[in-house]
Amino acid sequence: MKLKGIFITIEGPDGAGKTSVIKELLPKLEQTLGERIVSTREPGGSRIAEKIRELILDPEHTEMDIRTEALLYAAGRRQHLMEKILPALDRGEIVLCDRFVDSSLAYQGHARGIGMEEVASINRFATNDIEPDFTLYLDIEASVGLERIHKGKADRQFDRLDQEKLEFHEKVREAYLKLADEHTERITLIDAAQELDEVVDECYKIIVEKLKNRV
Amino acid sequence: MKLKGIFITIEGPDGAGKTSVIKELLPKLEQTLGERIVSTREPGGSRIAEKIRELILDPEHTEMDIRTEALLYAAGRRQHLMEKILPALDRGEIVLCDRFVDSSLAYQGHARGIGMEEVASINRFATNDIEPDFTLYLDIEASVGLERIHKGKADRQFDRLDQEKLEFHEKVREAYLKLADEHTERITLIDAAQELDEVVDECYKIIVEKLKNRV
Repeated sequence: MKLKGIFITIEGPDGAGKTSVIKELLPKLEQTLGERIVSTREPGGSRIAEKIRELILDPEHTEMDIRTEALLYAAGRRQHLMEKILPALDRGEIVLCDRFVDSSLAYQGHARGIGMEEVASINRFATNDIEPDFTLYLDIEASVGLERIHKGKADRQFDRLDQEKLEFHEKVREAYLKLADEHTERITLIDAAQELDEVVDECYKIIVEKLKNRV
Repeated sequence: MKLKGIFITIEGPDGAGKTSVIKELLPKLEQTLGERIVSTREPGGSRIAEKIRELILDPEHTEMDIRTEALLYAAGRRQHLMEKILPALDRGEIVLCDRFVDSSLAYQGHARGIGMEEVASINRFATNDIEPDFTLYLDIEASVGLERIHKGKADRQFDRLDQEKLEFHEKVREAYLKLADEHTERITLIDAAQELDEVVDECYKIIVEKLKNRV
């Protein structure tokens, strides 16, 4: 399938600052690129993907198996892709998507231990092998990322749960670094420990540069 | 993984009479085999699998993509397997399951046109390659199966929708016959056009014979 638009994803562990970056980045890109840019994230306004997401995130569902979770993420991704991303690309728009397959490879595949190749296979089914044109990976050390998430929350002792969380997030980062290393042509690593303005600026420059070479 | 129990599935197109057969078969098997037999079908009492099933079957979800549907079936199957089938097999029970992976291969894979191998791959992810010890396939011609489903309903003209349904069910049967042909060691074909008693009797004899050779 030849798509007219350009498909960009933003990836990174929790606390890397994706949401803040996208919020600052979008108006800058719109000013440069006009109306052709769409920002989205799963479930992205698809009511079916929304219901799937509710199912995954319901805190009562403690009995959910990790492979069930991975299949549900792939199902929600498929629906979001078909209802939102592909129609926008087909209209020639630039789609900026907060998280995509790489997130499942890092979180379910590596950190939860299913295996990255196994999770990749169900996601190839979900996406018909459609990959982002390029990916901005916001890299942050797990401890710094977690600190950012907890900032503003009440002071408390570093407990066993925090230790588990830290190890989990270290695995997430490990997976992202592996992906960035294996897909240098697609993934650009950005140091997300910089000040927000600097991160936004770097993302902006990379996108504009990449688009200059493509459109 | 070595399981102590025995995992039997019953498959067939709509109208093959699976439900009626299981209803008659179960007490006969219980009498012979004692308390060690469990009958189940997806979602099989798993509340997560139940919610996934509701999502799939909601008639309002006309925008659901066929690959989303296939992934949701695989997710529900995974959860049912983990919560119900594997624990029962682990207790050494005989599990009789109404539909399993073969149904997805026939319905989503072949009849809906995704491709049987593609649907098989996401189901291998869902099941960790766990296969039934053996499968009873209730074979029925599509037109006879559909006639049975409609029996008792008001007389009406055979319309375009019925024609589409017939073609769909012919494809389902085609896929089942292909599977039965490729997996002769696992799948036993039973002529479901016979009288119910005869079908039940044949199923009963096959199961008892198979178990004699295994336990």
